[in-house]
Amino acid sequence: MELTVYLAGQIHDDWRGEVKKLAKERDLPLHFVGPQENHDRSDNIGEDIMGEQPNKVFRDDAASSVNNFRTQVLLQKSDAVIALFGEKYKQWNTAMDASAAIQLGKPLILVRPDSLVHPLKELSNQANVTVESIEQALDVLAYIYE
Amino acid sequence: MELTVYLAGQIHDDWRGEVKKLAKERDLPLHFVGPQENHDRSDNIGEDIMGEQPNKVFRDDAASSVNNFRTQVLLQKSDAVIALFGEKYKQWNTAMDASAAIQLGKPLILVRPDSLVHPLKELSNQANVTVESIEQALDVLAYIYE
Amino acid sequence: MELTVYLAGQIHDDWRGEVKKLAKERDLPLHFVGPQENHDRSDNIGEDIMGEQPNKVFRDDAASSVNNFRTQVLLQKSDAVIALFGEKYKQWNTAMDASAAIQLGKPLILVRPDSLVHPLKELSNQANVTVESIEQALDVLAYIYE
Amino acid sequence: MELTVYLAGQIHDDWRGEVKKLAKERDLPLHFVGPQENHDRSDNIGEDIMGEQPNKVFRDDAASSVNNFRTQVLLQKSDAVIALFGEKYKQWNTAMDASAAIQLGKPLILVRPDSLVHPLKELSNQANVTVESIEQALDVLAYIYE
Amino acid sequence: MELTVYLAGQIHDDWRGEVKKLAKERDLPLHFVGPQENHDRSDNIGEDIMGEQPNKVFRDDAASSVNNFRTQVLLQKSDAVIALFGEKYKQWNTAMDASAAIQLGKPLILVRPDSLVHPLKELSNQANVTVESIEQALDVLAYIYE
Amino acid sequence: MELTVYLAGQIHDDWRGEVKKLAKERDLPLHFVGPQENHDRSDNIGEDIMGEQPNKVFRDDAASSVNNFRTQVLLQKSDAVIALFGEKYKQWNTAMDASAAIQLGKPLILVRPDSLVHPLKELSNQANVTVESIEQALDVLAYIYE
Amino acid sequence: MELTVYLAGQIHDDWRGEVKKLAKERDLPLHFVGPQENHDRSDNIGEDIMGEQPNKVFRDDAASSVNNFRTQVLLQKSDAVIALFGEKYKQWNTAMDASAAIQLGKPLILVRPDSLVHPLKELSNQANVTVESIEQALDVLAYIYE
Amino acid sequence: MELTVYLAGQIHDDWRGEVKKLAKERDLPLHFVGPQENHDRSDNIGEDIMGEQPNKVFRDDAASSVNNFRTQVLLQKSDAVIALFGEKYKQWNTAMDASAAIQLGKPLILVRPDSLVHPLKELSNQANVTVESIEQALDVLAYIYE
Repeated sequence: MELTVYLAGQIHDDWRGEVKKLAKERDLPLHFVGPQENHDRSDNIGEDIMGEQPNKVFRDDAASSVNNFRTQVLLQKSDAVIALFGEKYKQWNTAMDASAAIQLGKPLILVRPDSLVHPLKELSNQANVTVESIEQALDVLAYIYE
Repeated sequence: MELTVYLAGQIHDDWRGEVKKLAKERDLPLHFVGPQENHDRSDNIGEDIMGEQPNKVFRDDAASSVNNFRTQVLLQKSDAVIALFGEKYKQWNTAMDASAAIQLGKPLILVRPDSLVHPLKELSNQANVTVESIEQALDVLAYIYE
Repeated sequence: MELTVYLAGQIHDDWRGEVKKLAKERDLPLHFVGPQENHDRSDNIGEDIMGEQPNKVFRDDAASSVNNFRTQVLLQKSDAVIALFGEKYKQWNTAMDASAAIQLGKPLILVRPDSLVHPLKELSNQANVTVESIEQALDVLAYIYE
Repeated sequence: MELTVYLAGQIHDDWRGEVKKLAKERDLPLHFVGPQENHDRSDNIGEDIMGEQPNKVFRDDAASSVNNFRTQVLLQKSDAVIALFGEKYKQWNTAMDASAAIQLGKPLILVRPDSLVHPLKELSNQANVTVESIEQALDVLAYIYE
Repeated sequence: MELTVYLAGQIHDDWRGEVKKLAKERDLPLHFVGPQENHDRSDNIGEDIMGEQPNKVFRDDAASSVNNFRTQVLLQKSDAVIALFGEKYKQWNTAMDASAAIQLGKPLILVRPDSLVHPLKELSNQANVTVESIEQALDVLAYIYE
Repeated sequence: MELTVYLAGQIHDDWRGEVKKLAKERDLPLHFVGPQENHDRSDNIGEDIMGEQPNKVFRDDAASSVNNFRTQVLLQKSDAVIALFGEKYKQWNTAMDASAAIQLGKPLILVRPDSLVHPLKELSNQANVTVESIEQALDVLAYIYE
Repeated sequence: MELTVYLAGQIHDDWRGEVKKLAKERDLPLHFVGPQENHDRSDNIGEDIMGEQPNKVFRDDAASSVNNFRTQVLLQKSDAVIALFGEKYKQWNTAMDASAAIQLGKPLILVRPDSLVHPLKELSNQANVTVESIEQALDVLAYIYE
Repeated sequence: MELTVYLAGQIHDDWRGEVKKLAKERDLPLHFVGPQENHDRSDNIGEDIMGEQPNKVFRDDAASSVNNFRTQVLLQKSDAVIALFGEKYKQWNTAMDASAAIQLGKPLILVRPDSLVHPLKELSNQANVTVESIEQALDVLAYIYE
């Protein structure tokens, strides 16, 4: 049984590449999707498509409309979601995607470092599983196939 | 027509009191609900009810289970949601509540300072209305009654 | 049994006043809600609340975000919807509200002049009832209480 | 990942052919569906199947029942929707399909010329993305695969 | 706790009056709603409101559009449904209302004479409770208040 | 695009075979499912599996539980439903399946002879399309592929 | 804000009376509903209403149909659910009601003695809050009003 | 038509192997999924992935979070559910899964020995079909393909 997993979270390092490598090493029939990982492209996509916007606020809104379109299409095709929080950045769209997954009934694995336990406590309590590392998240996914 | 409005957001200052005062001044038939605003009580509620927990992680999880119970009950009774972001704190449960409101079809007003436009752009794009101040949020609610 | 009815449609004449008058004359326990009927206020509400926008496109988008917020709150409180089409104007938000009502399971009465039968045929076919006048729409509502 | 996209909008010129050509040129794994594009067939389908109807009103209703059946089947199989508005025609069924897509949680791209900004402002505000050309709509779809 | 109960079924005798009388005798806080009980009015309501129709088929369709509007409004306001089948008539709209109740999650009591056990077996199997008399249906409703 | 169509209705003659033959002649990529068509097997299935039941009422209930299980599985896999009514039999489970299809958002074609217009008027009004013959129902399905 | 709370669980002692007493002592605006608490009446209700059944299996099924009808009506009217497990009895309908509450989005408090931690671990993990005593359950409900 | 069936129930003997063997003997195109069947692994999975927990309560909660994640993923991919109850063990998660299946609209076959009729009566009444043996459950599944 193939499963599609949405990888929500920051796009500042290649953690998704790591997830895919681990899944491949374990021969898991998983297909991963997620947001645009090229940070500049993600920020510019509104102006890249719709042209110059009046100012930064509208530039951001144009970009986010295309990003949200992509997320909604891919999240709805997914059977499960991993949401990863790191120590840097606001990551409010990660929280938004994780909460959307919960409300849509998509099973959710939360990955967060020990240092973020307190501010993420309500979200962690609603996630199906909370772990600290990508390896553990893969352990949870692999468990489906045991 | 009376409406119930859930006030999501930080509990470090009395912005909810301000919202209620403004609604009263305008004679709007609004009933406001929201999270526990006593910060210590909110953090301690798990141990206050279930007793001492093994460590901070479990203490936080116990507290969040009661906080989430309260939020779910009150959010479901609400006709609209205001989610306020400030310059301080992680505010991931605010993002979580705002996203839950969107998925549950609860109309959402986002309040955020100009400085947070960029990190909140995806959430702002999904909210019904985004404003910068409590007064403007009340303007939006008042517009229902014009 | 009191019922709340949303009145979707153009805001260029006082057809909603006529609906309310007829309901009152018949002593029907109906409560009517609907969009902002002051046309200028409806067009300006974005800038009235959020301040000046960069150009007409953004001015319109700001206004519509507040108008849509109002519509969503009131449509969800409604037990039935009347959508009236007239000979003038594009009336695409009327079609949008009527279609939303259908998808949300809100029983829908469509009011349209004979001249609009052809362009409204798909929407009419999905409405519960299609009539040509406000009086007939009230007849349908009154029938609930017979 | 193959995606199915419903193309809502007028059937007076071959804009859907253009969409398909552009998708093919870019090698996007998209499958497009939409309404009957033969205008006469679309208007006659009721009488073609159910036989002569008493007058134009019933002829239109018979045709729209078959058209709506087709739309409902194909819309439910779709992962995303493009709704295109042009300068001519009433296009109320385009607005109806676009609004149905929103309520059903189908991500929506609205295509409309600059001249229609004002009358489409509420629908545009609810769409995920609003653009002015077919090329831009394809840019949005292509972005899913980057 | 007051409850609203929809009474689906034939309109050829006064069984609904009997239901109401029994509920009153037992002092149950029940509010009953249902279809138009004046048979002629129910059959004529389309032409009464929309005027003469081309033939019997369209006359029936016009009437049923108003009857279905009424049913949808009242069924959605109900907490439970009684569907009564008698020995005469086709009663397909009773079956339709009963099935709609099941799909909408409205608890359903089926009342049917012993002679109809076989043709109603699939519907009976899906109903919450199947009984043979109005008195028994009231027993079931009364049990909520014990 | 392959579609699955549920064929609801009586099982006393081979109308489903006719539907399949017509679809094959037209080369339509349709997959048909439906109830058990062996009438005796359908009536006996409860006792065939669960053993002898105390009397006819319970024998019927046992059979219908298995029949309803089959219908629910297959209806949920279907993209559209044809419900055929004939001049004989009560056909209440056909009405039940048709109404379930409507509530589940499965597009519905109703097939009924002219003689049944009046008793089926409310159900016909809720169906997407109503026709009089199997050929016409196939015409409607074929129209999806034009 | 008044809330209605469903009290799921065994009916062998008066724990519901205790819950109501505690709520009254604290002046909480809570309205409690639940299953039939007279054990004999609960077991006999099928035969009390529908008459003698062929054997114990059918006697139980008749009773449970009426009990499930009552539960469905009252659970749907509730804003939250308390499910209490004790050391005795199978209590599978308590587990059934608790799981139904979770799926219906009704916030759930699980009350269970320490001795049942292991067999209830999956259900406890899905509940909003798990506590060991009625007093603690009331603490959780009271917290909504702080 | 291939179908996926979730096998809920105890993991103390190899009843799932028996189910699969019977399905293979009958050449049924069924794909079976279910919980982790290695009992120790199921109990240890929390600590196996997340490391040692403070005590048995938290060890159980960690394990159940991973087990529930697996169940939610697989249940959502399933077309039908078999829930088997045996004479031993509490089996509350079986009742939880069965009730979740009902609420999610997944057709449910309950397998239970005669000795458990009384305590399972409410759950049995809500299941589509109740049988006493695995062979009978397979008979019900096989009936879909007749």
